[in-house]
Amino acid sequence: MRLATIAGATPDGTLVVVSQDGSRMLAAGPDMPNLLGVMERWDAAQPKLADLARRLEAGEGEPLDSAALRAPLPRSWQWLDGSAFGTHGDLMQIAFKLPPIETDRPLMYQGLSDRFYGPTDPVPFPDPADGIDFEGEFGVIVDAVPMGTTPEEAMKHIRLVVQINDWSLRTIAPVEMKTGFGWVQAKPACSMAPFAVTPEALGDGWQNGRVCLDLAIEWNGKAFGHANGAAMDFGFHELVAHAARTRDLVAGTVIGSGTVSNPNYAEVGSSCISEVRAIEMIAEGKPSTAFMGYGDTIRMEAQDSDGFAPFGAIDQRVAEPAAR
Amino acid sequence: MRLATIAGATPDGTLVVVSQDGSRMLAAGPDMPNLLGVMERWDAAQPKLADLARRLEAGEGEPLDSAALRAPLPRSWQWLDGSAFGTHGDLMQIAFKLPPIETDRPLMYQGLSDRFYGPTDPVPFPDPADGIDFEGEFGVIVDAVPMGTTPEEAMKHIRLVVQINDWSLRTIAPVEMKTGFGWVQAKPACSMAPFAVTPEALGDGWQNGRVCLDLAIEWNGKAFGHANGAAMDFGFHELVAHAARTRDLVAGTVIGSGTVSNPNYAEVGSSCISEVRAIEMIAEGKPSTAFMGYGDTIRMEAQDSDGFAPFGAIDQRVAEPAAR
Repeated sequence: MRLATIAGATPDGTLVVVSQDGSRMLAAGPDMPNLLGVMERWDAAQPKLADLARRLEAGEGEPLDSAALRAPLPRSWQWLDGSAFGTHGDLMQIAFKLPPIETDRPLMYQGLSDRFYGPTDPVPFPDPADGIDFEGEFGVIVDAVPMGTTPEEAMKHIRLVVQINDWSLRTIAPVEMKTGFGWVQAKPACSMAPFAVTPEALGDGWQNGRVCLDLAIEWNGKAFGHANGAAMDFGFHELVAHAARTRDLVAGTVIGSGTVSNPNYAEVGSSCISEVRAIEMIAEGKPSTAFMGYGDTIRMEAQDSDGFAPFGAIDQRVAEPAAR
Repeated sequence: MRLATIAGATPDGTLVVVSQDGSRMLAAGPDMPNLLGVMERWDAAQPKLADLARRLEAGEGEPLDSAALRAPLPRSWQWLDGSAFGTHGDLMQIAFKLPPIETDRPLMYQGLSDRFYGPTDPVPFPDPADGIDFEGEFGVIVDAVPMGTTPEEAMKHIRLVVQINDWSLRTIAPVEMKTGFGWVQAKPACSMAPFAVTPEALGDGWQNGRVCLDLAIEWNGKAFGHANGAAMDFGFHELVAHAARTRDLVAGTVIGSGTVSNPNYAEVGSSCISEVRAIEMIAEGKPSTAFMGYGDTIRMEAQDSDGFAPFGAIDQRVAEPAAR
């Protein structure tokens, strides 16, 4: 089952179910107006949504206007982003001569969740000198998770999988990281690919709480990376349990994987510019790839071996801030 | 003007205006059902709320049932907590032999905002071994703040002032801080005192973007501290501008001061146990005050020189988690 959100009367938009081939949609209807509300009563909503999905495969539905697609979850009460790909952390540590991070637990910070940009929204940044960078990653959306939930139980609360561009400002990030307080200015709003997908619908693409798909990334139309999501040190179920150790997770919480990164990065590339610069620093003593500028475009699309893209594509550009 | 929230049909509760003496209330009404919605259109709502406040002072209204009071803002899209009292940071740094935090900018992290406990809610924690601690502080609620807003402009967006208990788990905090990612497990949900107050209504208690009131704290019925909020290194307007450097702040964003702390702590006490333990470590080589246990109570009430408490009191206890 694939869900999407089109513009609606409120910032939460209007929930639609999308056909497997992405060509048609059916509105979820007035008792399921938006995805945030559906997450609050997933068990009751799921059968109704599945019925709409069946009707779509039987030929019902109206044409899907891809230009109307917003983030499947345009805003949520909570966004907790992990950093679960060890290769990425190792490269950053070596390049910046940082001490090893002293923890055997998942790395995680809380970020901005009042807005997720849609897949084709231009994204405004105040200043290219801040080091504008993308981070291609995966995420999951959970229903309500009680405090103290185990990883095994947490797996059952993972209701939807999404694909995310975690926009990052690299000049600010190390300054904020040194404080120990985590990132505020260095992590503006993220973007989401258009379709939220149930784990079951990913088939072999969902194994052991990991999205086992290549994340194809093109920067300004040029291939940049196609690292695979299977290489997480912790599965999403373990990230969810980590987040729920001392808090109830509100329904609609989004948990992120961190930037997708593979040990064979020389072969498959990376999912953010910062990692490429770290590789350059290690090999050549200094980075040679610049960060993004106004007008730059970024495309991200996870694909299976048949070239099918279950989440659709993020395809957007860096914009100047709106005049005030 | 003082606003409060009583239980309602949704998690956002029902907004009421409260008389200056705290004895009576008038519902804000169906076009202003809750505070989160009011923050989204403050300029239109403010005159209507002010009119209700005037009617209350003229004797209208119904009795206020203090037991029905929830957090004035029971949930919000964003909570960004500063650490603006330099004395607190200095004491922690000396006691734990930490390197100085290398920044001349405000310290800030993003925390859990999907739930603010009400002033008398028992607060469940999974394990007293986590080092359960309170942090008495102040906060402000802003309407929509555009990216790039200056401190001077930010002052105008501060619509309400609140009093907060930022619950903290001290065994986890340094472990998470060392990662540079900030706190997730160490910072569960906060609590709010019952009344959100306009800056104007604080009179001399609001100066230069600071709450110039003593925050009286009693732990298990015993006086613990009465530090003054005026000692912030950065005013709230500067914290708001810092937060808005690279993001639009959504209406209803809550910005916190961090635990109130004064240079003359030997005289006025502290606003969290951790700081008292740091003072003990510096003076005696080791801490002698234990953290909180199940059943412990905490009362926090900012007071002016006449003993008036504009925000009302937080008065709650540490609870075991609900059986699952």
